[in-house]
Amino acid sequence: MNLDKVYHAAYTLKDVIRSTDVIKAPSLNPDCNVFLKTENLQVTGSFKVRGAYYKISQLSPAEKAKGVIACSAGNHAQGVALAARRAGIKAVITLPDGAPISKVEATKSYGAEVVLVPGVYDDAYNRALKLRDEKGYTLIHPFDDEDVIAGQGTIGLEIINQVPNVDAVIVPIGGGGLISGVAFAIKALNPNIKVYGVQALGAPSMLNSIKDKKIEKLEEVSTIADGIAVKQPGNITYTLCSKYVDGIVAVSDDEIAAAILQLIEKHKMIAEGAGAVPVAAVMFNKIPDLKGKNVCCLVSGGNIDVNILSRVINRGLQMSGRTTTLVIELTDKPGQLVKVSQIIAACGANVTGVLHERSNTGSKINDCNLRITMETKNGAHINEIRKALISSGFKLVG
Amino acid sequence: MNLDKVYHAAYTLKDVIRSTDVIKAPSLNPDCNVFLKTENLQVTGSFKVRGAYYKISQLSPAEKAKGVIACSAGNHAQGVALAARRAGIKAVITLPDGAPISKVEATKSYGAEVVLVPGVYDDAYNRALKLRDEKGYTLIHPFDDEDVIAGQGTIGLEIINQVPNVDAVIVPIGGGGLISGVAFAIKALNPNIKVYGVQALGAPSMLNSIKDKKIEKLEEVSTIADGIAVKQPGNITYTLCSKYVDGIVAVSDDEIAAAILQLIEKHKMIAEGAGAVPVAAVMFNKIPDLKGKNVCCLVSGGNIDVNILSRVINRGLQMSGRTTTLVIELTDKPGQLVKVSQIIAACGANVTGVLHERSNTGSKINDCNLRITMETKNGAHINEIRKALISSGFKLVG
Repeated sequence: MNLDKVYHAAYTLKDVIRSTDVIKAPSLNPDCNVFLKTENLQVTGSFKVRGAYYKISQLSPAEKAKGVIACSAGNHAQGVALAARRAGIKAVITLPDGAPISKVEATKSYGAEVVLVPGVYDDAYNRALKLRDEKGYTLIHPFDDEDVIAGQGTIGLEIINQVPNVDAVIVPIGGGGLISGVAFAIKALNPNIKVYGVQALGAPSMLNSIKDKKIEKLEEVSTIADGIAVKQPGNITYTLCSKYVDGIVAVSDDEIAAAILQLIEKHKMIAEGAGAVPVAAVMFNKIPDLKGKNVCCLVSGGNIDVNILSRVINRGLQMSGRTTTLVIELTDKPGQLVKVSQIIAACGANVTGVLHERSNTGSKINDCNLRITMETKNGAHINEIRKALISSGFKLVG
Repeated sequence: MNLDKVYHAAYTLKDVIRSTDVIKAPSLNPDCNVFLKTENLQVTGSFKVRGAYYKISQLSPAEKAKGVIACSAGNHAQGVALAARRAGIKAVITLPDGAPISKVEATKSYGAEVVLVPGVYDDAYNRALKLRDEKGYTLIHPFDDEDVIAGQGTIGLEIINQVPNVDAVIVPIGGGGLISGVAFAIKALNPNIKVYGVQALGAPSMLNSIKDKKIEKLEEVSTIADGIAVKQPGNITYTLCSKYVDGIVAVSDDEIAAAILQLIEKHKMIAEGAGAVPVAAVMFNKIPDLKGKNVCCLVSGGNIDVNILSRVINRGLQMSGRTTTLVIELTDKPGQLVKVSQIIAACGANVTGVLHERSNTGSKINDCNLRITMETKNGAHINEIRKALISSGFKLVG
């Protein structure tokens, strides 16, 4: 790696990508000055297009004439597809056939040929290798490639220009391509700036490998941050991370969900799980010595499945007391639902669901349970409603 | 109004606000080149801080010493609160006591004194007038004020600089302050650029007033776009809109919800209902003659209550076939749930809720209904599941 390559990538990319905004985020952690580098607002919804386009731009005319292939159900697929279209060459993407329809459609919409392969990721990857050998396509690796890494490194150049006196940059780690490029570029320009990596607790492959000083492969990965659920670091990325990264921390799925909700509420932005891990690390004080510092969180992408987004929001609403479900044991006689409804209405909550269940085990034969879901203001408001129900003689069983 | 005032506002605002990004949005309407002016990413989550800050900057030292007051449960409250803090003066905000706790907290977080008034908006507004008279505060009107309008007009200057060869600018209308400033600034610089306004179908006050050539007051307003649910245009805004706006259209709540979901999925941004109406108008072809044109939608704000956001997303998921609820009539004998579950699992859907109801009216005494909610891929996938159940002998009743 050398800095010339990163500058050349920046020059090559300038008409293809957006130089995404940096936005101040004072509420994320009151102890430091937080900035967000918004690569979730990049074209294709993630930074991946940078590395993919620069890699493609460096192919020989003969390689370009044959086209490229990649295996991915996520951001890399869309990045390669758009990059290939912009470069005017053919792109084939192999995906496991269980991939979300939204990702398949997005990849097709950028003009790539999609090959759905029965099985899991490894099956799709093997098909990509086979097609590469048969057709002469160039395989675009998602992270373990110097040109790809140089493309991602352009974000480091932008951060240094956009964040005045930045002290620390916090970057997600999956395979390590993004942080390798960013850390290399930043340290080459100013070694005093700290670069920290963040992984999901359920997929700590680089964290473990760096700790044990050798590349290790995880048996299983499990996290809502699917974009960084990578079992094994690359060779190049492992070496660059060992050399340039100041530390790696991990965050839980609940912390990631809280960060996603915070970005929605305070910054009106959607981040995917992988994109939110730096924010989670800063919110929950996982990174050492940030007090009073200028800290830039790299929000790497926003391609979250809307079903998962809906669950994250609902979970966040429950955790912050803005929705709740109470279970009330009633004597099964007329007028009980009216009374409960009146009490809840008087407290200012908004009922969104009612379930009236008879013949529960362990209760009297005439009793029944009323399971009532409502929108509330906060935890104190929920307690107020519970108290009002209890003081009117109702028994809460959940 | 004059252009000097708008340029002076831009100069005054430059260290207080962000010059928000313009982002290309090719997928919103394939017939034209759509750009989004992202005022939802403005500080406080909406454009309102522009007008409020410029208004406050123009107060006399004596007025500043006494402080300002405003009545609002929404973006104006947060705009005035932040603007006053940045100007170093006192701000009092009156709100109806039913206002969402999140809005109250956000307003307080910018340092304003919050006065909760029992009743509705009009009660809070009357209290603001009373406090103004008693304490000598200056009332900051949310829209019918030339300084406020000039502040909002700075967005027009930015759009002209940011969108090359812009042909049309689409702007939300509530009271009309935003569009008055934007239309004035744009027409003063280039009268060939079209400026269109968009209202909610449930709150078409400016639309009706302009059509009938006199200011009219609506009896009722009802829309998910609470930021533009205004019963009556202002005098100044009515005059400016009559003169400078090329046309006004209205969009339904369903269209607004679809626009919000589209901005989330394609652009990773949260818009509130009011902020999404220009996008809805362009998506659903409400504006005449946009074919082949460069069109800028002003996404005015992103302060949507998370409960409402959750409902919009869930509605959108249902409408696009990514979640569904089927009701299956079962004979009440062992093993039925197993069979249904197996069929659904084999189809690749993900069950998220099951409700097993006995003794339904109109069914045999031994029968029961199984209400099963699941995540699905799209409408075709739902049909596939329905067919698989029916061909195994199950009866779908919903």
